[in-house]
Amino acid sequence: MTGSTDTTFTGLAIQPADIDAAAARLAGIAHRTPVRASRQADERTGAKLFFKCENFQRMGAFKFRGAYNALAQFTPAQRERGVIAFSSGNHAQAIALAARLLGMPSVIVMPTDSPAAKLAATRDYQSGQRGSEVVLYDRYTDDREAIGRRLAEERGMTLIPPYDHAHVMAGQGTAAAELIDEVGALDRLVVCVGGGGLISGCAVAAHARVPGIEVVGVEPEAGNDVQQSLAAGRVVRIDTPRTIADGAQTQAAGALTFPVIQRLVRRVVTVSDAQLVATMRFFAERMKMIVEPTGCLAAAAVLEGALDGIRGQRIGIILSGGNVDLPRFASLIAE
Amino acid sequence: MTGSTDTTFTGLAIQPADIDAAAARLAGIAHRTPVRASRQADERTGAKLFFKCENFQRMGAFKFRGAYNALAQFTPAQRERGVIAFSSGNHAQAIALAARLLGMPSVIVMPTDSPAAKLAATRDYQSGQRGSEVVLYDRYTDDREAIGRRLAEERGMTLIPPYDHAHVMAGQGTAAAELIDEVGALDRLVVCVGGGGLISGCAVAAHARVPGIEVVGVEPEAGNDVQQSLAAGRVVRIDTPRTIADGAQTQAAGALTFPVIQRLVRRVVTVSDAQLVATMRFFAERMKMIVEPTGCLAAAAVLEGALDGIRGQRIGIILSGGNVDLPRFASLIAE
Repeated sequence: MTGSTDTTFTGLAIQPADIDAAAARLAGIAHRTPVRASRQADERTGAKLFFKCENFQRMGAFKFRGAYNALAQFTPAQRERGVIAFSSGNHAQAIALAARLLGMPSVIVMPTDSPAAKLAATRDYQSGQRGSEVVLYDRYTDDREAIGRRLAEERGMTLIPPYDHAHVMAGQGTAAAELIDEVGALDRLVVCVGGGGLISGCAVAAHARVPGIEVVGVEPEAGNDVQQSLAAGRVVRIDTPRTIADGAQTQAAGALTFPVIQRLVRRVVTVSDAQLVATMRFFAERMKMIVEPTGCLAAAAVLEGALDGIRGQRIGIILSGGNVDLPRFASLIAE
Repeated sequence: MTGSTDTTFTGLAIQPADIDAAAARLAGIAHRTPVRASRQADERTGAKLFFKCENFQRMGAFKFRGAYNALAQFTPAQRERGVIAFSSGNHAQAIALAARLLGMPSVIVMPTDSPAAKLAATRDYQSGQRGSEVVLYDRYTDDREAIGRRLAEERGMTLIPPYDHAHVMAGQGTAAAELIDEVGALDRLVVCVGGGGLISGCAVAAHARVPGIEVVGVEPEAGNDVQQSLAAGRVVRIDTPRTIADGAQTQAAGALTFPVIQRLVRRVVTVSDAQLVATMRFFAERMKMIVEPTGCLAAAAVLEGALDGIRGQRIGIILSGGNVDLPRFASLIAE
């Protein structure tokens, strides 16, 4: 067709301009995290690897980007009432911290059996912010959705989901934007996949900067719902997978994230928990840093041989977070 | 006196220009390590802290800078014969790696009871380099100096000491130069002290950039030989101290490093092993990185209250290295 216009992003929930706008909101507030290289990893793979260290992001994970980008766009009325989120993981802490920075109340709904460290960290991020609290529910007897709906209704708070939200997706994409703006064009970008918030934002940012870049998703072997969804051509839902990658224990991609993945992600591969542990050890021993199991997904695919044809390529790898309890970290690397 | 000239560096073994020359030799070979900040640490101290992450340096410590800067200045004849070093620690690995990169043989003299991981790492850095080997000695029955002298004589190799050498000192100073060039003027620079190679180089680099900057040294409580030396006005020698800061188990500062410390270091403070462990935990939990005990000395002084008057100051802190065996790291942080 002549006179064609670029339809790469047509109809998707987020556009390249949304990521640029998110980057402007996050400037001076989120860390511009370092990009690290490792000669050992390069020698082992024959590729040139660039690790984007979101384990060094505020509150320890990329989730801060999306949470802050979403909350920063609340209307004055929404801001007055505050935000509500369900999460026992990084999304909880991200919302609590972003809300405090923006001076709004946050209610985080967490299961009663959440690790004490995560409860404490969430409350710590909420500290000093009026109207903020953690609401606990019993994951075996209570209906978390019902609790959330009731609270949102009673208090007029806005619910921010962990991934299926355009502002969240756009915020997460700033990680890939920073990476490519710093190191230049890449042949591939490898990103972990849970609900698809990070990879959808990153795929839009990457394709906007490097048309035709191969974006690859990585899921835990035990929970390859997005891989199945791509094969089926529709969102496939699975049982909560058993994996140490707790940030990727999602059951299904989102209604907004999946179309972006279908369009802009070339393929999704899987890695085993044993490969995640080997990768965690590599980061600790060789690169002196702590990456949580979920944060090792993308790197494990590259370092442990789940991807073909990487020799000679320039590959960006998002390390999504570093929040792992120290005793658990110690026992995983000691195995 | 009128018409005075600047005598800040007069008579010292290294001058600011030596550090600039070292930086040029290291460009593209050593990592320009990231400078990291922590809002939590800033809130806790009331200061603005800049952590220079030499734990992310090649072979895991600042020692690579000095080793490479020294070996790069060998004459063709010296290069042909190679280098010899005594060390069971980071200096060994730094010399082995720098020698391989420069294509020269290295002989590293290590005690038979060195940790297997350090032996393996040193041999790994020597791999493929003709004439390179690890020579083991029994630290209870053999005379390490005699072994070294004999080898140096027989093979015509050049001995590079771990700190008391102008080229080594100048190389180490590039860490402070990079830090200040990146973040701008500082009120204080806090640096760990073993034999004084790092702090002497850094003090020269810092004073050249920020005249009057307060450079502070930090030693383990159990081994405050430099603190004693400053009080005595001469190099005081102590018994090998018992401390987890194995990189600072030196008995005395050097003939070249001590005059620099006397001139350019305002004071030396000490921290306990318990404070080092608390600081290691802080870096692991909050900043998601692994810093070896010696590498925590400077930060421990700032975070654990060994320094007065820091509120409102801009403070640079050198994290000297990250080489700690994972099982040992796991047991230290789990305590």
